[in-house]
Amino acid sequence: MKLWGGRFSGKMDPAAWDLNSSLAFDRRLALQDVRGSLSWAQALEQAGALTEDECAQIFTGLQAILSEFEQGHFLFLESDEDIHTAVERRLGELMGPVAGKLHTGRSRNDQVATDLRLWVMDHLPLLDAALANLQAALIERAEADFELLMPGYTHLQRAQVILLSHWWLSHFWPLQRDRQRLKQALQRTASLPLGCGALAGTPYPIDRLALAEALSFSEPASNSLDAVSERDFVLEILFCSALVGVHLSKLAEAIVLFTSLEFGFLELSDAYATGSSLMPQKKNPDVFELARGKSGALVGWLTGLLVTMKGLPSTYDKDLQEDKTPLFNAIDTLNTLLPVLAGALRSLRVHPERMRAAIDSTMMATDLADYLVEKGLPFRQAHALAGQAVQLSLKQGKPLESLTLEEFQALGEEFGPITFDAEVYQVFDPARSALRRSAIGGTAPQAVHEQIQQAKKAV
Amino acid sequence: MKLWGGRFSGKMDPAAWDLNSSLAFDRRLALQDVRGSLSWAQALEQAGALTEDECAQIFTGLQAILSEFEQGHFLFLESDEDIHTAVERRLGELMGPVAGKLHTGRSRNDQVATDLRLWVMDHLPLLDAALANLQAALIERAEADFELLMPGYTHLQRAQVILLSHWWLSHFWPLQRDRQRLKQALQRTASLPLGCGALAGTPYPIDRLALAEALSFSEPASNSLDAVSERDFVLEILFCSALVGVHLSKLAEAIVLFTSLEFGFLELSDAYATGSSLMPQKKNPDVFELARGKSGALVGWLTGLLVTMKGLPSTYDKDLQEDKTPLFNAIDTLNTLLPVLAGALRSLRVHPERMRAAIDSTMMATDLADYLVEKGLPFRQAHALAGQAVQLSLKQGKPLESLTLEEFQALGEEFGPITFDAEVYQVFDPARSALRRSAIGGTAPQAVHEQIQQAKKAV
Amino acid sequence: MKLWGGRFSGKMDPAAWDLNSSLAFDRRLALQDVRGSLSWAQALEQAGALTEDECAQIFTGLQAILSEFEQGHFLFLESDEDIHTAVERRLGELMGPVAGKLHTGRSRNDQVATDLRLWVMDHLPLLDAALANLQAALIERAEADFELLMPGYTHLQRAQVILLSHWWLSHFWPLQRDRQRLKQALQRTASLPLGCGALAGTPYPIDRLALAEALSFSEPASNSLDAVSERDFVLEILFCSALVGVHLSKLAEAIVLFTSLEFGFLELSDAYATGSSLMPQKKNPDVFELARGKSGALVGWLTGLLVTMKGLPSTYDKDLQEDKTPLFNAIDTLNTLLPVLAGALRSLRVHPERMRAAIDSTMMATDLADYLVEKGLPFRQAHALAGQAVQLSLKQGKPLESLTLEEFQALGEEFGPITFDAEVYQVFDPARSALRRSAIGGTAPQAVHEQIQQAKKAV
Amino acid sequence: MKLWGGRFSGKMDPAAWDLNSSLAFDRRLALQDVRGSLSWAQALEQAGALTEDECAQIFTGLQAILSEFEQGHFLFLESDEDIHTAVERRLGELMGPVAGKLHTGRSRNDQVATDLRLWVMDHLPLLDAALANLQAALIERAEADFELLMPGYTHLQRAQVILLSHWWLSHFWPLQRDRQRLKQALQRTASLPLGCGALAGTPYPIDRLALAEALSFSEPASNSLDAVSERDFVLEILFCSALVGVHLSKLAEAIVLFTSLEFGFLELSDAYATGSSLMPQKKNPDVFELARGKSGALVGWLTGLLVTMKGLPSTYDKDLQEDKTPLFNAIDTLNTLLPVLAGALRSLRVHPERMRAAIDSTMMATDLADYLVEKGLPFRQAHALAGQAVQLSLKQGKPLESLTLEEFQALGEEFGPITFDAEVYQVFDPARSALRRSAIGGTAPQAVHEQIQQAKKAV
Repeated sequence: MKLWGGRFSGKMDPAAWDLNSSLAFDRRLALQDVRGSLSWAQALEQAGALTEDECAQIFTGLQAILSEFEQGHFLFLESDEDIHTAVERRLGELMGPVAGKLHTGRSRNDQVATDLRLWVMDHLPLLDAALANLQAALIERAEADFELLMPGYTHLQRAQVILLSHWWLSHFWPLQRDRQRLKQALQRTASLPLGCGALAGTPYPIDRLALAEALSFSEPASNSLDAVSERDFVLEILFCSALVGVHLSKLAEAIVLFTSLEFGFLELSDAYATGSSLMPQKKNPDVFELARGKSGALVGWLTGLLVTMKGLPSTYDKDLQEDKTPLFNAIDTLNTLLPVLAGALRSLRVHPERMRAAIDSTMMATDLADYLVEKGLPFRQAHALAGQAVQLSLKQGKPLESLTLEEFQALGEEFGPITFDAEVYQVFDPARSALRRSAIGGTAPQAVHEQIQQAKKAV
Repeated sequence: MKLWGGRFSGKMDPAAWDLNSSLAFDRRLALQDVRGSLSWAQALEQAGALTEDECAQIFTGLQAILSEFEQGHFLFLESDEDIHTAVERRLGELMGPVAGKLHTGRSRNDQVATDLRLWVMDHLPLLDAALANLQAALIERAEADFELLMPGYTHLQRAQVILLSHWWLSHFWPLQRDRQRLKQALQRTASLPLGCGALAGTPYPIDRLALAEALSFSEPASNSLDAVSERDFVLEILFCSALVGVHLSKLAEAIVLFTSLEFGFLELSDAYATGSSLMPQKKNPDVFELARGKSGALVGWLTGLLVTMKGLPSTYDKDLQEDKTPLFNAIDTLNTLLPVLAGALRSLRVHPERMRAAIDSTMMATDLADYLVEKGLPFRQAHALAGQAVQLSLKQGKPLESLTLEEFQALGEEFGPITFDAEVYQVFDPARSALRRSAIGGTAPQAVHEQIQQAKKAV
Repeated sequence: MKLWGGRFSGKMDPAAWDLNSSLAFDRRLALQDVRGSLSWAQALEQAGALTEDECAQIFTGLQAILSEFEQGHFLFLESDEDIHTAVERRLGELMGPVAGKLHTGRSRNDQVATDLRLWVMDHLPLLDAALANLQAALIERAEADFELLMPGYTHLQRAQVILLSHWWLSHFWPLQRDRQRLKQALQRTASLPLGCGALAGTPYPIDRLALAEALSFSEPASNSLDAVSERDFVLEILFCSALVGVHLSKLAEAIVLFTSLEFGFLELSDAYATGSSLMPQKKNPDVFELARGKSGALVGWLTGLLVTMKGLPSTYDKDLQEDKTPLFNAIDTLNTLLPVLAGALRSLRVHPERMRAAIDSTMMATDLADYLVEKGLPFRQAHALAGQAVQLSLKQGKPLESLTLEEFQALGEEFGPITFDAEVYQVFDPARSALRRSAIGGTAPQAVHEQIQQAKKAV
Repeated sequence: MKLWGGRFSGKMDPAAWDLNSSLAFDRRLALQDVRGSLSWAQALEQAGALTEDECAQIFTGLQAILSEFEQGHFLFLESDEDIHTAVERRLGELMGPVAGKLHTGRSRNDQVATDLRLWVMDHLPLLDAALANLQAALIERAEADFELLMPGYTHLQRAQVILLSHWWLSHFWPLQRDRQRLKQALQRTASLPLGCGALAGTPYPIDRLALAEALSFSEPASNSLDAVSERDFVLEILFCSALVGVHLSKLAEAIVLFTSLEFGFLELSDAYATGSSLMPQKKNPDVFELARGKSGALVGWLTGLLVTMKGLPSTYDKDLQEDKTPLFNAIDTLNTLLPVLAGALRSLRVHPERMRAAIDSTMMATDLADYLVEKGLPFRQAHALAGQAVQLSLKQGKPLESLTLEEFQALGEEFGPITFDAEVYQVFDPARSALRRSAIGGTAPQAVHEQIQQAKKAV
């Protein structure tokens, strides 16, 4: 069945029909389509376009269809062009000619835009919960691994001592921003297209404010031409998803590194690792690699829809049908990934001794420079002097902390008289190094403790 | 000059130096860098790491540098690795060794992230103003062209009658959403990295809340590892820019269409048109084509930085240096485009008679169906019958409104007894068709009038 | 069943298993997987790693499996991790322990890379045929519509007269380049990974030259590390597909324009047009809009896989599993689109009178300039003078060809004495304008005739 | 100066002029533009559109301009719209009105497409040389580090022993494919647009075959509409560049890993490393991080131009002006990166002892399985048994090779009677493991030796 054809004499080419049909993917909008139609019928009745009785009949039919969908009994036909057609066709089967009154004053253009927004409004809260669950896993890790020291890296070179809990939380905040962005996107999604007709508005006296309220939208869209054709909300959610993907790729990259034997800081539970068909010894971090790899598809779906939207003139063009697949794919991908990552994080085993062993005294070179700053040297000179100390230790093949006071003293000369004393060796204590960084956001235990509280409140 | 080197014995390869140097593009952060340093010096003084006198000296020096930048007198050296180095080098020339105290407790990692956020906080309001100016031009057009009728299109086929003012406003609302998104992005940008050091936080008792306030940030970043390495704010602004680009491409596509001779609805002012080196008659809409074309680069910059960020492990990696060029390019592109488009829109000449002539009576076929609905036919059958009327008019080669009552009557038979009456010919009045669509967001003059008021309040 | 696990004690988390499993999409490689295994068994036998009898047993089993796949009888189990596992599991069911010998010296890393290349080698010829079919439709149109004149556009402004056949052929050559690119990509695909093991090569004396020949590859891959991890061939095909998409979007955009009522040059057959659920008169070019819209997804799949590949270190990472979906999607999309577009083009109706009516005399302004060049004026001045003639005709509201000789004469003065004569009016003959452009590649009928011959030879 | 304007009465808006002007970037086409004009003048003379004397004058002028460009003396004016206008303007200054004859029968549309192709034909050989230089560095490393053993990784987990030289060469072959692709793109670039006019061809009897030969093109373009508007060659080169970028990102990622202290296989020369402004001990692999990071921009430029090209109708639209910046940027980026990477590779210091120390006996688990295969066990069971051995060694906390024969023996039982013998301990010799993988493309020294010879021949 198709909802048009009066003016056509020829039949559609079967391959063209297949290309044109969207049922394969828009059937996911079934529940939303029926809910939208229920509210539309009510609005038509209020506008005097349906009698109370007609409205009641349509309600009965739509409720039956809803229940068919919910129980998986609904029968789609090959000839249903899309979900809207399928529902109207079925309504006709159930209720007879009154079904033909449902589409009064409405177009599939405003209908599908409404359905898709409803779908988003139904599904974003689930995505939000999945993100919050991953955040919760990160907080749990931060609490469980609270005071463990590890090397912090920049440029993948050992940089300064940090707390593992601080590192876990560094993956918490990006997700917090993601959730905030998604919430704001959701607010923008809640602008109702229904009642905009094909493009010009509806000629029936529909109360669009009431209609918006009935469907839990915050407002009716202000401009019918814009409302039937804008897909900003889809693009925005695809961007948010791509950014979540990038954040997960960052976490995943680090876990892949840290579970390598060379780092050895973390170890995967068998429940989240895989093996090799050839190499018996392998234990691979596939789930993290997939998280990293799937960031590609997430970026691709965003790019793809941006390309599709580019250069379209105003109001509805069929190109817009390409909006659904990337949206569904993106949400599905994240909903599949997020719980697995949360589970994998929760079950990771930490090797504190491997992290501790990777902290060498050159990582406290900044603390050495700070020691010299306390002695009155400008930081820039203190930095140069500490650098020379590092160079000397490398040349002599002994750790920085094994340089003698005399050797330290000898370095300082070009910068004037500095007296190194025995306290210099205290700077090489990693715990002290972390403890000193106690300003807000720093890695000192107290600061991290406060950060955990802040995170718990935020989540 | 470079800010490091104590531990190095060899010299850097010149080509590697050139690749590494970022001065060519980060010099645009000059003012922000100095402002950040002024606040940092103050914070160091409050933390006891600088004496009042040292702080005053550094202030004097930085103010002098600021003034050199503002007057274009600042001399960059080939050997300046980046803007931060250039400023510290110059400070040393002006004030001597005290300059070496400025970098105490700070790293270029937190410094550059702060500078870039300050730059964004300085420049987004300008972009917002440029967007608002284009919106203002659209409102002006909507008011000037208020009651002009034009054909509305879907699938680039004539669909229903609309008001030109309604069409102008359909390009207003996307920009409104863009501005809202940019404002929310700006709020997320106002989270201060300074005081996060290289990655682990600063060991000096810096009051980061006060520092944030001094630099007009809303809060200090909560996690130092995240703060020095996240570029979400850049990605978000690049996304917003890409979406603005897509919106401009939509407007541009339509203007290119409407200024073609085949449509002929609009005519470019000579001030915004260009000619051909070969064809003397040409008057080309280059500025709109460039707007449409540049949406490509805007999408490309977003994609590019997403690729760069993908798969980086936590904290600072040099890859992040690639964040500036796309950001600067995107903002520059929009700031160049927007005023030209606003000017071009304001100076467009409208040809109402061409628009009116393009409204043919088949565009009122929906109104014909609605007429039949009033006669009691379910919409689905009314639609089919109206479609047959269109088919008949095409077959007979005469306009829909020229069908006789008998011809209309003959069509209806399969749907039962419908009596067409003379009032049917009223449906072919385009003004009436527009007038009927008076629900919120519709194209009826009253609804558009209210929309203009809403737009004026929103802008 | 999974092909590993000896070293594992825990069970895999079910959600992690689902995420990890690739059977949902790699089952499309079934035939290729079996064919690869048949050749591998033979190679193992030649290398002495299988006895003749073992090889025969494995052959029997694999042939049975092949036939199960071909007849749609093969039963996949939930527990099959991927297509390779499913086949090996089934082989064991059919033939017992000897099945366990098939994977000797092989890894899924070289296996899947081989399977995917085989799939490409099977499917690119079909894509090539679909492209050639669209090219054939373009040639047919060029011959059928041979001497029809139409306005040629630049900047969507009327520029110069061209032949419709010339315009059809302008869409032929891009597809010719696409096919050439795809053929070269196919050649690069035919480099065999099998025999590279997991990464380091196979320890069995496999004759990889013979193996390559047996599987119709042109050579064994030269480096095992590269062979198991490079996906250049997928990226290259995705690029080629994206470029085909851009070419189709260009054709589609033009058809959408030309079938609009404002242009009216072409009319869709009912077999390739669709209607509106609301507006009874609509006849929409959905198939061309979908072609245009789907170029987005094609670009997105390319971008997505580029993102996935970025920053992976050498040899196999699980991220590579993300290569299949975009490849399959891209090929499927083109194979769906191309025949529909060919059919739609073949069935288009041309309206020569609408094209002729759109040719106005200003389109011959270049010919007017050329006329003046013949009179001895440098082209730059001739161009300026012709431009003034256009301006005069616009001001006077009469066609360029209606300017009197005196009016023409009056324009010329600033450039010195030019004598316009009656022959000037010949330049306004559109057929003459086309006829003059007879150099290779031009729009003159003779040049287009030669172009058609060249196209026929090339296709 | 602008090359049009006869028909215009108003002046162009200054901001619109700035937007429209392309001189800022197309001035890089100066030499190509003059060379194209020299050949065009000659073609006009041969076609009888210029006298011998006029052609000679134009030659004199263009040669003078060429020399001004080469010596950096050419003076651009603010009012030059683009490089073509600048050259024609200057020609007029030098030679008077005869300059106005140069543009006869030509348009900027065919001119700029020709210039850009000439630029590509000039610059791709340089890029090819830079790629070949990096390949040469890789071969040098492969020869210098020939028999050094290292752990090979999959999923970043230790997998099997490989030769470092083999690993170096795994980065050689992708570049070989890149060069092949670029050469094929270059062949497609060598199709001449000149003589296609604005869109319809040139009305002068230009010998385009001779013109193509004069400018070193392989053929004249076959269709004028296609020739002035297709930018496939730019897109193809941008794709090739993006793929080079991905290849470099892979190499860079691995070098960043291998120069980390945790791996420690490689050490950067001071000439290619950088330090930290804060942390005195840091030695960072910035050049490799930049290579990895810049892959983002390279992908972005490709995506951007694909977006720009999408949905444009046929022949020239101003959007095409956006083709130059990404092309120039991509080529510049690679030409900057490649020599630095080659230098950095050549100067890397290898730590064989660190690589050797990272080879643990579990990496020979596949060899253990192969040992069991020799004993008659099907590989699948041998794999399971070797996996159990690994599990036992992990449980006992001792290396695989320290399991006693009894312990090995105890594992085998479920698979039937296998007799482990003392030879089993030979499988744990890494050199033997490598030696065994001697099939083409494998890591055995002899196979790698042959690979080096193959690479040397190919480069």
